[in-house]
Amino acid sequence: MATSSPPLKDELDIVIPTIRNLDFLEMWRPYFEPYHLIIVQDGDPSKTIKVPPGFDYELYNRNDINKLLGPRASCISFKDSACRCFGYMVSKKKYIFTIDDDCFVANDPSGKQINALEQHIKNLLCPSTPLFFNTLYDPFREGADFVRGYPFSLREGVPTAISHGLWLNIPDYDAPTQLVKPLERNTRYVDTVLTIPKGTLFPMCGMNLAFDRDLIGPAMYFGLMGDGQPIGRYDDMWAGWCCKVICDHLGLGIKTGLPYIFHSKASNPFVNLRKEYKGIFWQEDIIPFFQSLALPKEATTVQKCYIEMSKQVKEKLGKIDPYFDKLADAMVTWIEAWDQLNPAKKA
Amino acid sequence: MATSSPPLKDELDIVIPTIRNLDFLEMWRPYFEPYHLIIVQDGDPSKTIKVPPGFDYELYNRNDINKLLGPRASCISFKDSACRCFGYMVSKKKYIFTIDDDCFVANDPSGKQINALEQHIKNLLCPSTPLFFNTLYDPFREGADFVRGYPFSLREGVPTAISHGLWLNIPDYDAPTQLVKPLERNTRYVDTVLTIPKGTLFPMCGMNLAFDRDLIGPAMYFGLMGDGQPIGRYDDMWAGWCCKVICDHLGLGIKTGLPYIFHSKASNPFVNLRKEYKGIFWQEDIIPFFQSLALPKEATTVQKCYIEMSKQVKEKLGKIDPYFDKLADAMVTWIEAWDQLNPAKKA
Repeated sequence: MATSSPPLKDELDIVIPTIRNLDFLEMWRPYFEPYHLIIVQDGDPSKTIKVPPGFDYELYNRNDINKLLGPRASCISFKDSACRCFGYMVSKKKYIFTIDDDCFVANDPSGKQINALEQHIKNLLCPSTPLFFNTLYDPFREGADFVRGYPFSLREGVPTAISHGLWLNIPDYDAPTQLVKPLERNTRYVDTVLTIPKGTLFPMCGMNLAFDRDLIGPAMYFGLMGDGQPIGRYDDMWAGWCCKVICDHLGLGIKTGLPYIFHSKASNPFVNLRKEYKGIFWQEDIIPFFQSLALPKEATTVQKCYIEMSKQVKEKLGKIDPYFDKLADAMVTWIEAWDQLNPAKKA
Repeated sequence: MATSSPPLKDELDIVIPTIRNLDFLEMWRPYFEPYHLIIVQDGDPSKTIKVPPGFDYELYNRNDINKLLGPRASCISFKDSACRCFGYMVSKKKYIFTIDDDCFVANDPSGKQINALEQHIKNLLCPSTPLFFNTLYDPFREGADFVRGYPFSLREGVPTAISHGLWLNIPDYDAPTQLVKPLERNTRYVDTVLTIPKGTLFPMCGMNLAFDRDLIGPAMYFGLMGDGQPIGRYDDMWAGWCCKVICDHLGLGIKTGLPYIFHSKASNPFVNLRKEYKGIFWQEDIIPFFQSLALPKEATTVQKCYIEMSKQVKEKLGKIDPYFDKLADAMVTWIEAWDQLNPAKKA
């Protein structure tokens, strides 16, 4: 990592969903400028999104998505930041970092700016340890190791597929918690990275997230949200549940913790409540569904896992609401679209 | 907690295993003096252990243990800090805090002394969340909560049975790691407490540990170690594996993280290697054993779980080495001794 060139410069794309001018990039300039940006413009495609000069980017609006995917564009959400997953699909790089446009550079407790991207890359490039908990957290971090009693056969770890970063200032709360605690701010800097153990689900937030496309990309589908859908704000959650089950099945790891970004503005809790309320009760069935979901041995690739999962979604969650039938179909369409844009490499 | 009297003053005992004068208590005086100490003297019972004046304590040496337990004293290790579990058994309090005599008061990053006991009590008195991971760590801590996507039905949590604290300065490494990294010191203060998820094992260290005797006490057996045994330094690990499986089965939680103590001195890695080397390869079988151990529905108390576990230890681990036959028998003896000293309360 101690090279003069930024780490993974030619192997990582930054994906940003937005509906506005990207002034927030100014603060990220020293960190993001060396990388290629994929901007997914949501909403009215005739609107012009201004990108500060000097950045290397490509921008896709709804017309571009429709043109590239044809009828398959139906799997990409509209008027919801879930549209960001189109950027994952259209990228040709091994790694993705995605960030919301209301997230700024945070400071560590010493006052130093946090290079979030660099920390994500560190997380992705060193193994995860989902099979046994290490009480000193990430054993691969400088100054730490596996503690007494950690089985030696598990110390190699498994490849890390996802790095989930956190947020200072505005925490990622649901609408009810926002309403109850409008003034709560996250000021606690927890100096750690840890692997989420195998068999445990977590709420994956898409605000500050990095992953390895080659390992988990086709499962990073943010579902059907926003325009014409009965639900919003569950896009990243859905992707997180699917990814966690598939990572567990394929022997891949997910890390959470550092890096922090500074989340500047809470979204409107009343609007959020409208988007979330179906999800709040649906998730009471969705969580047990994912907790007990078993994938067959033959599902040896992310695509195969995901198609199998879509069948089980249709069969078991379809009973809750017709929405899940549509979602299951969209999961299949997503994989078709992914394979269309990412034809299998020759061995 | 904001009372003038120390929290749980009449409901908590501090258990200290030792072979030497307890000068280390001087530094802990402001924190420990209000509490009752149970000192378990290891080794030569004719030696006098000096306790600094002003502390309220009872002291048990090997003669006392033999007298109280008769033939059942065989389950209590000799010449090994595993003997500390006698103190858990002889206590009449609801809570136990146990600490090694080479552990001192640590400072937090602001330089303030850490009241380890107070933090353990906080951990024990608020619920755990083993069924779903919360990315902002302990949701019950001030300034934190459950994040978006955390199922509401799981937010009540489960009772916390164990609070596992960590160590600054000398980390709790095994002998091979000590040998490879003799100079490594833990200087990273990670400001968090988290629940170890259901289904995940962890290496429980007995150096800085608190638990609820009523909830998990009879499973807190530190096994057969030291004098006459082929193994050492797996006492707390053994207890941790047993406790974790039983907590998962009974719907109880285990927290790890804060508080830190300052661990002053690394034990001799050559001596440790001799004690550990059988454990290092045995644990490769022990871990899968505990990972797949299923307890029957009828095992509704810690005692019943533990007796069932002892049967499975004999059946499945007995094949590895005759030591596990002995250990399985000792597990039964331990429960008999526990029930002897702790007759069931009338309803």
